[in-house]
Amino acid sequence: MANKKRSKLKIIPLGGLGEIGKNMTVMEYENDIIVIDCGLSFPDEDMLGVDLVIPDMTYLEENFDRIRGFVITHGHEDHIGALPYALQKFSVPVYGSKFTLALIAHKMEEHHIKNADLRCVAAGDTVQLGCFKVEFIKVGHSIAGALALAVTTPVGVLIHTGDFKVDYTPIDNEPIDIAAFARYGSKGVLALMMDSTNAELAGSTPSETEIGKTFEMVFDEAEGRVIVASFASNVYRIQQVADVAIRHGRVICFQGRSMVMIARIAMQLGYLQIPEESIVEIEKLNKYAPNEICVLTTGSQGESMSGLFRMANANHKLNIGKGDTVVISASAIPGNERAVGKVINQLFRRGAYVVYDRLADVHVSGHARRDELKLMFRLTKPKYFIPVHGEARHLYHNAKLAEEMGMDENHVFVMETGNVLELYARGGKLAGTVTSGSVLVDGSGVGDIGSSVLRERRILSEEGMFSIVIAIKTSTGELAAEPQIISRGFVYTKDSEELMEEAKAVAMKLTPQFVLCERSEWGAVKNNIKSAIKGYLFNKTGRAPVIMPIFVEVE
Amino acid sequence: MANKKRSKLKIIPLGGLGEIGKNMTVMEYENDIIVIDCGLSFPDEDMLGVDLVIPDMTYLEENFDRIRGFVITHGHEDHIGALPYALQKFSVPVYGSKFTLALIAHKMEEHHIKNADLRCVAAGDTVQLGCFKVEFIKVGHSIAGALALAVTTPVGVLIHTGDFKVDYTPIDNEPIDIAAFARYGSKGVLALMMDSTNAELAGSTPSETEIGKTFEMVFDEAEGRVIVASFASNVYRIQQVADVAIRHGRVICFQGRSMVMIARIAMQLGYLQIPEESIVEIEKLNKYAPNEICVLTTGSQGESMSGLFRMANANHKLNIGKGDTVVISASAIPGNERAVGKVINQLFRRGAYVVYDRLADVHVSGHARRDELKLMFRLTKPKYFIPVHGEARHLYHNAKLAEEMGMDENHVFVMETGNVLELYARGGKLAGTVTSGSVLVDGSGVGDIGSSVLRERRILSEEGMFSIVIAIKTSTGELAAEPQIISRGFVYTKDSEELMEEAKAVAMKLTPQFVLCERSEWGAVKNNIKSAIKGYLFNKTGRAPVIMPIFVEVE
Repeated sequence: MANKKRSKLKIIPLGGLGEIGKNMTVMEYENDIIVIDCGLSFPDEDMLGVDLVIPDMTYLEENFDRIRGFVITHGHEDHIGALPYALQKFSVPVYGSKFTLALIAHKMEEHHIKNADLRCVAAGDTVQLGCFKVEFIKVGHSIAGALALAVTTPVGVLIHTGDFKVDYTPIDNEPIDIAAFARYGSKGVLALMMDSTNAELAGSTPSETEIGKTFEMVFDEAEGRVIVASFASNVYRIQQVADVAIRHGRVICFQGRSMVMIARIAMQLGYLQIPEESIVEIEKLNKYAPNEICVLTTGSQGESMSGLFRMANANHKLNIGKGDTVVISASAIPGNERAVGKVINQLFRRGAYVVYDRLADVHVSGHARRDELKLMFRLTKPKYFIPVHGEARHLYHNAKLAEEMGMDENHVFVMETGNVLELYARGGKLAGTVTSGSVLVDGSGVGDIGSSVLRERRILSEEGMFSIVIAIKTSTGELAAEPQIISRGFVYTKDSEELMEEAKAVAMKLTPQFVLCERSEWGAVKNNIKSAIKGYLFNKTGRAPVIMPIFVEVE
Repeated sequence: MANKKRSKLKIIPLGGLGEIGKNMTVMEYENDIIVIDCGLSFPDEDMLGVDLVIPDMTYLEENFDRIRGFVITHGHEDHIGALPYALQKFSVPVYGSKFTLALIAHKMEEHHIKNADLRCVAAGDTVQLGCFKVEFIKVGHSIAGALALAVTTPVGVLIHTGDFKVDYTPIDNEPIDIAAFARYGSKGVLALMMDSTNAELAGSTPSETEIGKTFEMVFDEAEGRVIVASFASNVYRIQQVADVAIRHGRVICFQGRSMVMIARIAMQLGYLQIPEESIVEIEKLNKYAPNEICVLTTGSQGESMSGLFRMANANHKLNIGKGDTVVISASAIPGNERAVGKVINQLFRRGAYVVYDRLADVHVSGHARRDELKLMFRLTKPKYFIPVHGEARHLYHNAKLAEEMGMDENHVFVMETGNVLELYARGGKLAGTVTSGSVLVDGSGVGDIGSSVLRERRILSEEGMFSIVIAIKTSTGELAAEPQIISRGFVYTKDSEELMEEAKAVAMKLTPQFVLCERSEWGAVKNNIKSAIKGYLFNKTGRAPVIMPIFVEVE
């Protein structure tokens, strides 16, 4: 080895470990960096008011001149959602499949980013990015155009599965390219980075085609309209539903912004094949009988502005009611269970019949379970194993799987976001960390919200705020005006006049102290007033709103 | 019938229909009212800062002189939680089993309510409450002392199952009293009111004893401490875990306020049988080896102040770490999934091994599934059917079950909270509504928070607030002091000085208008300032905080 000192490969996850979301991994060797995926995550329930969360990219900013490209495995938000923020900072080429790039291009348009350098690849293609040779390998997933990566580096081959499932009978008839993984496995794989999402679950995830039977049954029995809510990006699901609907003599109507947008893109690119005469705009649906109609809509997560939500709440041209059959063809993402439940209840209340995952097989996951993970492990025969894409419990179970397959536990690296893993041809070790974390996006602000603002929002949200405005004459310390009280989110003010008057009286009892003491001591008086009001309100209401006494000193 | 006009029985649910929670049903005949259960529910995610929710009891207040008693089926919060609020208003006797009353008595103590008239009943007992004769019937459920009710009224017998499951092999060896239900069924039942919680699910809920095998296995394999988190009120679960632990040579340590409290009560009353020498206080645990210790704790829902949460986050004497085995013996209540997931992840991160419902059978529900519901239906052979305890989808599936059993759909009443059902010996109909709904409890305030306060809290929580204080001289309209800006939850103020200064400048540009116009026109100027600031901030940040311009007019 000529270049002993520097001949190490670094793998640095900047997101997606210890969480489901904002996947982003740096691979680095000497002067070359490639970045695998660039996703966002949706805010936790304690990130009040935050719109979305992206990875902290400080490390990339510090090394932007070495970035040879972004390599994107597929077009889900947790893999592409942070690209607009990244590309505003460093203009490097982005590689991905046709469908992935179409979704990215749409996103760039929305963010008014022009001239993004998007480079289309297909399964089987290879690109050279600095010292990295990246081959793209077809995998199954719940979106079209999903690709795994085989990255040939100076120290060995890395396989990154991206999100994947095996699925021997996919809707598009293009199953996962097992042979490609086997080929690399036979030649020797240094490390496998494998999707952990379903590592807790035994067996195999059922094929997408498995749920076709349920749809056949639902359409057989439905006497009125059938409304199917699903993820817009799951083109296979949409194809499957459309096929069954058309066989049952129904036309298709797309509803919901992302459903309409993605269906259009998928049809243009040939991922979705629906005869034009079977697609009907909402305005022309009245020409069809209810049993000739199938609506495909967004809203499978109960989102409050989605198509399904509005149809369930009499706020849509296609209001759902008696005679309609609704299929929620998705499972609730953790955190959305209540919202989904509410929509289901509302639909039943309106007289519709609803089919959802507790009742029938209307959804399959896009992620491999343990038996599929074992297959991938045996195919690639890696020397080292790095579980990726998952919360701590998923990573743990994936690591456990590697050990069950006979791997030495010292060859398994359970990493956290920001960790640096150094791999050599003959070994590997965790070596420090880089700056990493979550950047919160709220409105047009990126990263200007932190824990202190969130803490204030939490208190405001739970107890509201209470403000008393006291104007004092600088010269004498006397009141310059009647104190005013302003509160929000605390009590219903009109019913609480007495409380407000008494709180004012509590303050007024202390204001003479301004007259009696030096101006230099007014700070203490202000604190006394704040405490007195805080104590009074807690005593009367059991609540501790944000207290904001405002003192105006006038001449 | 002598008394034709008034000879009708009214059934009025005041809670628990269209929701899981705050169960409360009024039965009324002429001058007599009994109230079945008096529960609370926990706030929805949009009820920011609300502590708990109780039924609107206006109807009872208007008719309090006719209430003959509260009849409580069991001691879960959604059946007893609103009793302190009810008993503060009307002092009537409360009937329930020994364990139910013990939990109620504890609750009364916490609320400083003295002299509650608690009357203990046992399965098989009958009490006469006005014209109602109530027999209590043993059922299975996830709490000790659960009872169904057979209410003999002047127009016929009503069976109210309360929450129930069948369970032929319960831990306490006292299975559901099938014969009692059959006896009433043979004599003739006018109406059945049946638990709908699990009406979506086919088959039968497994017996509580079924999960014993999992615990055996976990204790067999555990090399260090075993920590089990469960609902404190599930005395059967606690008994089962304690039995296995003691057989494995371990002592028991109770942790978490409600776990300690309920275990004490259950042992005093004989519901829980654990040898005294097997119970060890936390301070003495250090005398035992890790494999001699079993901790039973609260926190199965990921609650942030619970025992398990603190043990997982290094905030408890019993911090969990490498070598420990944790069992989450519960399923997440909808809405708690993320919180539970976070605790599990944290435990894995600390090196513990965690067993939870995705991995093993560590929990069974306390509610009957469809086959059990069918059994109850066949036993009681009701003329009318009223699904209770459930959201719309659960009620729908329970109603559907009655129809599958051959009941005419006109004999099935799917009610909503506040509906009045009139039953005669020969018929029944929905007849109007009474005042009903949710009363929000926040701190010591009961019902003083409504939708307007919640809306304010929501906006404050998402965008924060922004206030500018402008003092004006009444006589001239000139500024009396430099404007002040105060914001909370909006932006991190220290990083946003420029934004604050510019917002101030936006306001200052408009303040000369006070000088230029009549005082009667100042309102318009104030509105202009508010709009200008709102527009400026939205333009700069994409956020719309609560804007509160405060004008102080001084002499």
